[in-house]
Amino acid sequence: MDRTLAREAAKLAGKKILLQGWVNTKRDHGKITFLDLYDRTGIIQVVGAGEEIRALHPQDVVEIEGIVQPRPASTINEKLQTGKIEVKAEKIEVLSKAEELPFDLGMQTLDLELPTLLDYRSLTLRHPKVRAIFNVQEAIIDEFRESLKRKEFTEFQSPVIIPQGAEGGAEMFEVNYFNHKAFLAQSPQFYKQILVGVFERVFAVNKTLRAEPSVTTRHLTEVTTLDAELGFIEDWEELMDVAEDVIRDIFIRVEKDCNVELQLLDASIPKLSEKIPRIKLREAQGIIFKRTKRENCNEPDLAPEDEREICKWSFEEKGSDLVFVTHYPTSKRPFYTMADPKDPEYTLSFDLLGRGVEWLTGSQRINNLKTLTQKAKERGVDLEKSELYLQAFKYGIPPEGGFSFGSERITMHILGLKNVREASLFPRDMERVDVRLSTLKNK
Amino acid sequence: MDRTLAREAAKLAGKKILLQGWVNTKRDHGKITFLDLYDRTGIIQVVGAGEEIRALHPQDVVEIEGIVQPRPASTINEKLQTGKIEVKAEKIEVLSKAEELPFDLGMQTLDLELPTLLDYRSLTLRHPKVRAIFNVQEAIIDEFRESLKRKEFTEFQSPVIIPQGAEGGAEMFEVNYFNHKAFLAQSPQFYKQILVGVFERVFAVNKTLRAEPSVTTRHLTEVTTLDAELGFIEDWEELMDVAEDVIRDIFIRVEKDCNVELQLLDASIPKLSEKIPRIKLREAQGIIFKRTKRENCNEPDLAPEDEREICKWSFEEKGSDLVFVTHYPTSKRPFYTMADPKDPEYTLSFDLLGRGVEWLTGSQRINNLKTLTQKAKERGVDLEKSELYLQAFKYGIPPEGGFSFGSERITMHILGLKNVREASLFPRDMERVDVRLSTLKNK
Repeated sequence: MDRTLAREAAKLAGKKILLQGWVNTKRDHGKITFLDLYDRTGIIQVVGAGEEIRALHPQDVVEIEGIVQPRPASTINEKLQTGKIEVKAEKIEVLSKAEELPFDLGMQTLDLELPTLLDYRSLTLRHPKVRAIFNVQEAIIDEFRESLKRKEFTEFQSPVIIPQGAEGGAEMFEVNYFNHKAFLAQSPQFYKQILVGVFERVFAVNKTLRAEPSVTTRHLTEVTTLDAELGFIEDWEELMDVAEDVIRDIFIRVEKDCNVELQLLDASIPKLSEKIPRIKLREAQGIIFKRTKRENCNEPDLAPEDEREICKWSFEEKGSDLVFVTHYPTSKRPFYTMADPKDPEYTLSFDLLGRGVEWLTGSQRINNLKTLTQKAKERGVDLEKSELYLQAFKYGIPPEGGFSFGSERITMHILGLKNVREASLFPRDMERVDVRLSTLKNK
Repeated sequence: MDRTLAREAAKLAGKKILLQGWVNTKRDHGKITFLDLYDRTGIIQVVGAGEEIRALHPQDVVEIEGIVQPRPASTINEKLQTGKIEVKAEKIEVLSKAEELPFDLGMQTLDLELPTLLDYRSLTLRHPKVRAIFNVQEAIIDEFRESLKRKEFTEFQSPVIIPQGAEGGAEMFEVNYFNHKAFLAQSPQFYKQILVGVFERVFAVNKTLRAEPSVTTRHLTEVTTLDAELGFIEDWEELMDVAEDVIRDIFIRVEKDCNVELQLLDASIPKLSEKIPRIKLREAQGIIFKRTKRENCNEPDLAPEDEREICKWSFEEKGSDLVFVTHYPTSKRPFYTMADPKDPEYTLSFDLLGRGVEWLTGSQRINNLKTLTQKAKERGVDLEKSELYLQAFKYGIPPEGGFSFGSERITMHILGLKNVREASLFPRDMERVDVRLSTLKNK
């Protein structure tokens, strides 16, 4: 007998079907037992009598043959796709028996502490609310790709093992590479710039690794980064145009395809005005000063409270949850960032802020070999092993730039999660690589 | 003036346009100079007189304003999309000047030795034939995704840094992880199995790393692997059905979208019969013996010459360039591979061979916790740090299996490339991480 998926069962009243899935919850009502069974398409109620069904436990993997029948009117659940029917079990087979769960997974809210959520990751990922996070993340990453493919960007696979860092070597993981010292890539920066010389417009969905010695709610050591880079830009504002289009497409896609997930997680898509406001850092600081009287006008960056304030301003004054802050000081941006020809103390760079935090960062890059090597030298960046990067500029790279953002952070910000670890299937940080490092012998 | 892309110019005879791109080749004919200019959409001929155009060199990045005009009948190139027109240059601006090239990139064939091809990777990637390889690779990877999404697979991002290997620890790169020993993932095996418990059907496009101490034409240390895993399989042959569908979809897509690239690379899609033949290893060895009298009937695997022979047989007798060989000996497959209940010396495993070599490998997995831990123990595999993997089976995993293949190898096999390094943008091996390791100080 062929398997019937949960979502298809509603249409099959009166028919005998074969369900396969996991027991979510079990309720014994005297002689009768109710199961919530779930598979990849949803949840379905199973009802039966006898020892066999009574012996089942949450997370048992079962195969159940039974008849689809309408539920008694009093037990109809309008919220559920299959809420008007149930399956009367006739034959039950246990495909895989689960051990007793350490906590209740059937509950509506999932109020586990983060360490428990992660110690039992293979189990907690099965909770509908946790699964929903990664359905949204999949849609975000997929739409990043689709949006850029519509603009004729080429997808590429960027290396993980690199001979030298793109940003001066801080906080890189070191690999023993056949007795040579190599590193794990913190970003695909050099490679995406090289490939502007090949495909003009490129993007990558790639792992980036940072030996962040900080344990915060925002830091992971392993991140899936979304990177784009494009050549022949008319001017640097075109970079913000493309970033804005991508973000807008992502919002539209998530709203369209992940409606159920957004409801389940009580999340809403940020509000966008027709155009995301763009203001210079110094202007932003002026606005913040006016609103708060905080004297941060000469700082090279926005402090967390200032980020929150400028987002508040953007929402209140411009009707946009997101805001571009531009022209960060040259000294605070990577060596390859293009200085503003009108005011070389500042760069043609931007951060996209939303809901009080940074979402995305980008800039125009220096595309002249001489200027590039000179800037690297001034900043003490060693490019000795970055031959291929310099080679690209030796043989002609057009005016170009790009942007980058982390898939975990954007998932976190859209869904309003409190900790970025919740937005990573298997989060890695200073204290954990699946298992807690403190529990291991230091070897 | 807005930019016109090369492919749009053919329709604009008589109009003034602005082109942006790289000089591919330059030919001086007395007073007149001809350029082949290229951008991401193709090549276009530019003609002009005077010092400015004569001073251009290959790979110069230029912006040219000019009039689109029909070519003289004698110079029409029917093979080229823009072969009936040329652009008479009126104004030339050099956006980025290229240095003298170390070799001619304009030539039809690219007969550079591999070390040169890689030493100048940022330049050689710009050759149309090299670019074509990665256009095909992009289509392969994209179709892998699309094909599985149509079957309701969920895409996930698998970790790079892992606490312990999936296959017993051989040939893993070691990372210094905050003074703990961690490793780079050789495969997403454990994670895709865990996620069968969450999404039923999953796939990943992910970097896998192997400290292969061999320098062959088939080995890279860094590979973009295409992995799929699915639960609630009816029987293990379903795994081959899915793999076959994916491969077939990839062939159809490449043939449809990469026609130009296939012609340029003189490549053709392998021939498939209505169903890819499936034969047991021992049967294959019997066939090979009959055809060649080679006595390899009791070997645990096929030697390279036997792989070639069975592919020859498949093509000659079954009309298929591809063939599944199944039931490899239990001792030769990873500990998690399901043994054939009818003959436990052999596994429910398969390799897909084509054009004389292995393309893809897969199997049903053990989904019973007790059997799994016992097999690991028997094979000396330490799962001490693989808590999350074992946890998944503790809480119920359905009958499941999957398959895996490398994007570089399948690109190589479809295109008939001689060396897998040609199918990696930035290939890593024992001797090279962008730069040749032998040229570096051992530090």
